Amino acid sequence: MSQNQLDTKSQAWSALFSEPMSELVKRYTASVFFDQRLWLADITGSLAHAEMLAAQGIIGADDFASIERGMAQIRSEIESGAFEWKLDLEDVHLNIEARLTQLVGDAGKRLHTGRSRNDQVATDVRLWLRDEIDLIGGLLNELQQALVEIAERNVEVILPGFTHLQVAQPVSFGHHLLAYVEMFARDAERFSDVRRRTNRLPLGSAALAGTTYPLDRARVARTLGMVNAAGEAQLCQNSLDAVSDRDFAIEFSAAASLCMIHISRLSEELIIWMSQNFGFIKIADRFTTGSSIMPQKKNPDVPELARGKTGRVVGHLMGLITLMKGQPLAYNKDNQEDKEPLFDTVDTLKDTLRIFAEMIGGQLNPATGKKEGGITVNAEAMEQAARKGYATATDLADYLVKKGVPFRDAHETVAHAVKAATAHGVDLSELPLTVLQGFNALIEKDVFDCLSLRGSLNARNTVGGTAPAQVRAQIARHQTRLA
Amino acid sequence: MSQNQLDTKSQAWSALFSEPMSELVKRYTASVFFDQRLWLADITGSLAHAEMLAAQGIIGADDFASIERGMAQIRSEIESGAFEWKLDLEDVHLNIEARLTQLVGDAGKRLHTGRSRNDQVATDVRLWLRDEIDLIGGLLNELQQALVEIAERNVEVILPGFTHLQVAQPVSFGHHLLAYVEMFARDAERFSDVRRRTNRLPLGSAALAGTTYPLDRARVARTLGMVNAAGEAQLCQNSLDAVSDRDFAIEFSAAASLCMIHISRLSEELIIWMSQNFGFIKIADRFTTGSSIMPQKKNPDVPELARGKTGRVVGHLMGLITLMKGQPLAYNKDNQEDKEPLFDTVDTLKDTLRIFAEMIGGQLNPATGKKEGGITVNAEAMEQAARKGYATATDLADYLVKKGVPFRDAHETVAHAVKAATAHGVDLSELPLTVLQGFNALIEKDVFDCLSLRGSLNARNTVGGTAPAQVRAQIARHQTRLA
Amino acid sequence: MSQNQLDTKSQAWSALFSEPMSELVKRYTASVFFDQRLWLADITGSLAHAEMLAAQGIIGADDFASIERGMAQIRSEIESGAFEWKLDLEDVHLNIEARLTQLVGDAGKRLHTGRSRNDQVATDVRLWLRDEIDLIGGLLNELQQALVEIAERNVEVILPGFTHLQVAQPVSFGHHLLAYVEMFARDAERFSDVRRRTNRLPLGSAALAGTTYPLDRARVARTLGMVNAAGEAQLCQNSLDAVSDRDFAIEFSAAASLCMIHISRLSEELIIWMSQNFGFIKIADRFTTGSSIMPQKKNPDVPELARGKTGRVVGHLMGLITLMKGQPLAYNKDNQEDKEPLFDTVDTLKDTLRIFAEMIGGQLNPATGKKEGGITVNAEAMEQAARKGYATATDLADYLVKKGVPFRDAHETVAHAVKAATAHGVDLSELPLTVLQGFNALIEKDVFDCLSLRGSLNARNTVGGTAPAQVRAQIARHQTRLA
Amino acid sequence: MSQNQLDTKSQAWSALFSEPMSELVKRYTASVFFDQRLWLADITGSLAHAEMLAAQGIIGADDFASIERGMAQIRSEIESGAFEWKLDLEDVHLNIEARLTQLVGDAGKRLHTGRSRNDQVATDVRLWLRDEIDLIGGLLNELQQALVEIAERNVEVILPGFTHLQVAQPVSFGHHLLAYVEMFARDAERFSDVRRRTNRLPLGSAALAGTTYPLDRARVARTLGMVNAAGEAQLCQNSLDAVSDRDFAIEFSAAASLCMIHISRLSEELIIWMSQNFGFIKIADRFTTGSSIMPQKKNPDVPELARGKTGRVVGHLMGLITLMKGQPLAYNKDNQEDKEPLFDTVDTLKDTLRIFAEMIGGQLNPATGKKEGGITVNAEAMEQAARKGYATATDLADYLVKKGVPFRDAHETVAHAVKAATAHGVDLSELPLTVLQGFNALIEKDVFDCLSLRGSLNARNTVGGTAPAQVRAQIARHQTRLA
Repeated sequence: MSQNQLDTKSQAWSALFSEPMSELVKRYTASVFFDQRLWLADITGSLAHAEMLAAQGIIGADDFASIERGMAQIRSEIESGAFEWKLDLEDVHLNIEARLTQLVGDAGKRLHTGRSRNDQVATDVRLWLRDEIDLIGGLLNELQQALVEIAERNVEVILPGFTHLQVAQPVSFGHHLLAYVEMFARDAERFSDVRRRTNRLPLGSAALAGTTYPLDRARVARTLGMVNAAGEAQLCQNSLDAVSDRDFAIEFSAAASLCMIHISRLSEELIIWMSQNFGFIKIADRFTTGSSIMPQKKNPDVPELARGKTGRVVGHLMGLITLMKGQPLAYNKDNQEDKEPLFDTVDTLKDTLRIFAEMIGGQLNPATGKKEGGITVNAEAMEQAARKGYATATDLADYLVKKGVPFRDAHETVAHAVKAATAHGVDLSELPLTVLQGFNALIEKDVFDCLSLRGSLNARNTVGGTAPAQVRAQIARHQTRLA
Repeated sequence: MSQNQLDTKSQAWSALFSEPMSELVKRYTASVFFDQRLWLADITGSLAHAEMLAAQGIIGADDFASIERGMAQIRSEIESGAFEWKLDLEDVHLNIEARLTQLVGDAGKRLHTGRSRNDQVATDVRLWLRDEIDLIGGLLNELQQALVEIAERNVEVILPGFTHLQVAQPVSFGHHLLAYVEMFARDAERFSDVRRRTNRLPLGSAALAGTTYPLDRARVARTLGMVNAAGEAQLCQNSLDAVSDRDFAIEFSAAASLCMIHISRLSEELIIWMSQNFGFIKIADRFTTGSSIMPQKKNPDVPELARGKTGRVVGHLMGLITLMKGQPLAYNKDNQEDKEPLFDTVDTLKDTLRIFAEMIGGQLNPATGKKEGGITVNAEAMEQAARKGYATATDLADYLVKKGVPFRDAHETVAHAVKAATAHGVDLSELPLTVLQGFNALIEKDVFDCLSLRGSLNARNTVGGTAPAQVRAQIARHQTRLA
Repeated sequence: MSQNQLDTKSQAWSALFSEPMSELVKRYTASVFFDQRLWLADITGSLAHAEMLAAQGIIGADDFASIERGMAQIRSEIESGAFEWKLDLEDVHLNIEARLTQLVGDAGKRLHTGRSRNDQVATDVRLWLRDEIDLIGGLLNELQQALVEIAERNVEVILPGFTHLQVAQPVSFGHHLLAYVEMFARDAERFSDVRRRTNRLPLGSAALAGTTYPLDRARVARTLGMVNAAGEAQLCQNSLDAVSDRDFAIEFSAAASLCMIHISRLSEELIIWMSQNFGFIKIADRFTTGSSIMPQKKNPDVPELARGKTGRVVGHLMGLITLMKGQPLAYNKDNQEDKEPLFDTVDTLKDTLRIFAEMIGGQLNPATGKKEGGITVNAEAMEQAARKGYATATDLADYLVKKGVPFRDAHETVAHAVKAATAHGVDLSELPLTVLQGFNALIEKDVFDCLSLRGSLNARNTVGGTAPAQVRAQIARHQTRLA
Repeated sequence: MSQNQLDTKSQAWSALFSEPMSELVKRYTASVFFDQRLWLADITGSLAHAEMLAAQGIIGADDFASIERGMAQIRSEIESGAFEWKLDLEDVHLNIEARLTQLVGDAGKRLHTGRSRNDQVATDVRLWLRDEIDLIGGLLNELQQALVEIAERNVEVILPGFTHLQVAQPVSFGHHLLAYVEMFARDAERFSDVRRRTNRLPLGSAALAGTTYPLDRARVARTLGMVNAAGEAQLCQNSLDAVSDRDFAIEFSAAASLCMIHISRLSEELIIWMSQNFGFIKIADRFTTGSSIMPQKKNPDVPELARGKTGRVVGHLMGLITLMKGQPLAYNKDNQEDKEPLFDTVDTLKDTLRIFAEMIGGQLNPATGKKEGGITVNAEAMEQAARKGYATATDLADYLVKKGVPFRDAHETVAHAVKAATAHGVDLSELPLTVLQGFNALIEKDVFDCLSLRGSLNARNTVGGTAPAQVRAQIARHQTRLA
């Protein structure tokens, strides 16, 4: 029994099995080609487990030292690309454990004491995802900062605010960009909530029922940083739940889907704004591509692709939910299918956030210390568009209300005025005062202040409104928050 | 202009429109037949808005008094069923406002000052959902309590713990039920996070850009209970975002989907446990139905239907996500489609949780003060099933480890022993000591303690493990938490 | 036993049950409030079954006569609204059967001979859906005709064809509309395929295993019109599959989702085209609504809502798929959840198609025999937009290819020309010949023909291309096909 | 201009672009690392296009000869692994075209005459998918054959038929397996319908508007086998639709999802049947795996994983639908996201079908010419389970009906009998005749024939029923159909 029975997976439980796995079945059931990205989490988790086993006297201090030494070598082998991943060993866990046993002998065989792959893999995925959530948090911060920077430069730029894609009221372009900052800020909040529920330790649950060894689970949790704000170790409190719970993966995917929905909305706007009939903005050439046939094209590929990738992330969410529906306790092999959608969701989200931060805000020019190459704003085109569509009609109604007309009556009066202006092909502000007074005698000369775009903008001066003063206050709030 | 132009919706902006809406289009675009359930939130929100308008001097104190009086009457009309909902008035908001103006004249027409349906509906839905989340929280608590009660009665009942639906290790039936308590506890956590992001005030954002009136948004928020734990008013900080944000609906649906996934897992187990070949439990007759053709049938309809309704809730989540994908700012009519899925999700979830709490835990008999009619447990069938499948094989491996054998070697030894026992059609505990010693000479007479189901159970005595002592500790923790 | 034990559902299998169902459980498990819309299919199916039972001598001719008489009365009661639907009787089937037995006594009790609700409900849903598919086919035809009519009037109208929402090449507006005709034609094809798989008879499968009575299933199929093109009876050939198969519902939902995806794409375009910066079309006022706050607004509510309803239909598809995942054979109560999503999908799709046909094509004015009130096309705005974005750049490349330049080289040359034109703020056709010749000496005076919008349009004269001659050929083909 | 401007993608439209793409953006927007699997379809399509260009005199015969020669070399380079795929060249199309131009010069630059990547990629995906559908058709046939073979061996084996996972009526195990044959036969039908709509030619649509060259599209279609049953060329008839249509991908994914739903249902049953409390079947060891901790385990990994992979395929469907929602015409970059989900769906489905065919039916032993290693059936365990649950109660009701009792009354009588038998803990067939007669005096000695499992089985002798004669008839029908 001195030979390493994990050398090939088919021998791992060989005594019971009368025939070898076929290659296709091996490939179908193995996960090593996608779960190897968990290697660092696997080693980290194993070391924390081994350290505790030694501290509890379950294995010897020499065993732990051997395990540490072996893991250090495995780490360097993996980092250098020298590590040989074997399909026969099915997954990242058996690959690493088998190599460990090759390197350090019986100590390696003792590592799995008091644990199972069921709690091991749950721990690995949680550790890995927790760190990815932290990276995503940083990227969300950068994207928000980029938006705030561009917003700051465009507080006074007037854009036609749309509802139903119809011109509604003039808004500050900076204000418009800050709407997305709110969305991404909520995303960050949500990821932080997911992190809290992800950062709990399944290890110690063994296969499903706990273990017969006197493990100190809280010690492992602390070693792995699985503590709450108060410093208390965060343990999964039920072994059956711990090994079969994939809530955190689904919840993460739902948060990622919402974030991509926001990206899809921003992308939709960028694409419309870049269309020749709008011409509101340009994005830098490196985020566009041309056409193989039409020599004049510069297409907004990146926003389009990001909008498309929303489907990808949403699809993974749906896949994960379908996966878990109706599964009895405890661990079932179905759960292995949690990894690829989760990995791809993380990759897609991180790439998208990184690219959007730069596409919006530009990249730092080390020579000047300034950002360059973000979106280019055509303020004139925006303002010109805002002059269409009677964007200040509400202001006229509000004007009448302030003269004592009930709002509903003022609304009706203005509808008549708009109808007349439309018939003449002019804006409300271009109707003579006498004509306006024909709709309501209370109208006086000062009406033209409220009918101007800038007058309308400045007037919306309540919290969250588009008046430049308000927008600047929000920018300051975000700058403090994101610093 | 003294007539009430909201009497019919088609006249609401009649001056501009040259033709009436057809009936089909009216029905297609109207929401009054499903959004009338928001009536109380609508009145509550309007009163808070009017109170602030008066406090700010935007409308007169007499106007506010009239609005209060009118709203009180509308409330009683709706509660008594006397209120006449009109399709022509499109939605709950215009129906109530039109009736208010009928009742109180110009004061009614002043109510809409400084707001739009865009921020009004967003406020209504948030108010309504916040209160529903609180109800759901209560139901989740009851369901957890029911599970804990049954768990407490079954701490010592031995169930075969399954992985891959294969007998794995003996577990306490109480422990098994507590796994679901963990899931529903996480659901409650998630709903509480959603509540935090739902309980924020859009009102004051008007159509999309804020308003020209000097609103005191924080006052409205406080009136409506939209404050955080520190008592600070919670405002949506960007008007464009405020009117178009439906994140809270999607996030709620995602949390509801996860909760239904847990219900589906529990249902799957109940159904399997009730199948004749298991026979582990019975549920009370009133949660089952018979067959129109097979006279002997008692079918577990409620768990099956609940498992099926998972699809319904997940479908709504996907519908809401699809709805928001690629929408430009700000409000678009698409958003009206947020309500029906949200309403149906809330209804389905509440009904399901209420029924499950009673189906599991029974209902209170007022005569005895005890609960009756919960699930009936067949402890003997469970224990008998646990005797199949070599559930204590891991214990034998652990036994060898404690004698100094590395775990991997012990695992291999036991695989040989299981193979031999299978060949003889006996359990490991039925192999003679000498035969066991043939596999490893370190095995002694005390091995039979660890090969018994109860010995195995008691041995898993780490936090979260299945040993009765641990299960009782968890029950105590939950009882404190849920009290 | 002379009393009718179906009078209330709780008595239907009363001998076995010791307690009544609670009201909530009744409501949770009952379907009568949504499945009553199957009443006509249920009666039709029952009559076909009874006719066969009589023909086979399983029931008497007098029994069949009584059943026919009773069903005639029930039909008239339901049509007049006099029929009393009872929650206690759970579903449409038991409601009708109970009433039948009230009306005709023992003959009614014989109706269920050789069948079960499992095969009965499967038959009812298939009959109902088959007829709805036929209605949908008609609506798809009308929508295609409306599109073809508008296309015919706009063959020569030039629209900027977009890829990536960037101006690409000029296209005929008629050609653009025909793209949607292709999509809806494919939808019709798909629904026809679904119909083929829906129109098969489960009846005769009884609960799950077939029946002991000598049924003539083919006779029932023929009575119900469940025959293929060759007139052969179409039977579900396996009783276990027949009662549990819901493929047809999922397949229908998938086809409906694709159809709504097409509607969403058309809606997106209508919305963009109606935005002030495009101004390409108007839709009639009755498909738009105004704003409660902004007096100038006419919002394209119908296309927006239709785009939103895509989510609803897609959500139902996902719900149905989730429902069926992992269900063991044969019938499970989960399947009851198939109806509401299916019904809502049918309703949504029919309403949407009907409204779109009229919104696009207008409605018939009986006085003139002409359609009025379809979309209004602003040909000038379209053509003006086509002049932006160097839409004929590809034509210049093709011009060079025809002079012998390899395409890739021509493409590069034109890119340089576009760059120069952009720098001068002019179109390619506005560059002097000498400047153009500077890019390639082969360019001659005739280049300006190919640089005009109309020249470009006419030149794309291959099958499926945008040249008016091709568009007219396609219109003729569609007119023949849809007649 | 003699240099090959496709050598790197960044130079493909270099004249217009002022800055290079960053590496991340390149990776984000490039598809070459996943779309290279389209290489053969791309070459096939290009050759058909070039052949037609030459036949129409658009390029010279020598150009075509050069292109043929170049493509032959590229094919051999790709097959041998020598071909160097470049990220800079973005996708499979530009990689191949650039290499072609390297190899054959100007002829290569002429290949793209009259086409665009938009119609090229649409053609490639359709060609590739068409061939994959044919492979899937073959695999579905093999799986059906495997099921039919095992069914044939188990016609007389009695299984408890379940509804609601409660014992319902005895069924033939062969009959049960044939239910899945029906499902997979419907899948094959559906894929065949998808194939019809996939096998249509977009080429000739160019970027979006058709082309100015006199292409013969029908010739290309015939060369590529895009003809219908009547031999008519199948062309996409509208250029805007042709380049933006992804219906076929969604429709394929929906068909694949349904097929995986069937797999998930079969898997669920296999897993339940293998659980120790059922013990109905075993699958060969090579489709199971053991546990890292529990030495006794043999887990049904393959069915579990297949059940889990249902989520994956359903997720891709959802992703594709989300992708297309709300996209305006014509091609948008979003569409690039269609490939990965489609590819993964095809791979997952093919692997699953292949493995299931062998897992069910076994593999051919070349030595004996027989299949070995399929599922092992424990007929005794099945029959024993069928004895539980009063599976013949319906037969007793039918017995009474044949004596003249109305079915509903018979049903009620048998419910009383079952209640009595349950109270005594015996089966209906174990009740003494006198006791049975107490429920209805018409009962005579021959009742015991119909109360036996085999009697019940044989009695269900209508089309699609479980009587062995019927099952054998179905097997014969399938054998003919699948041959």
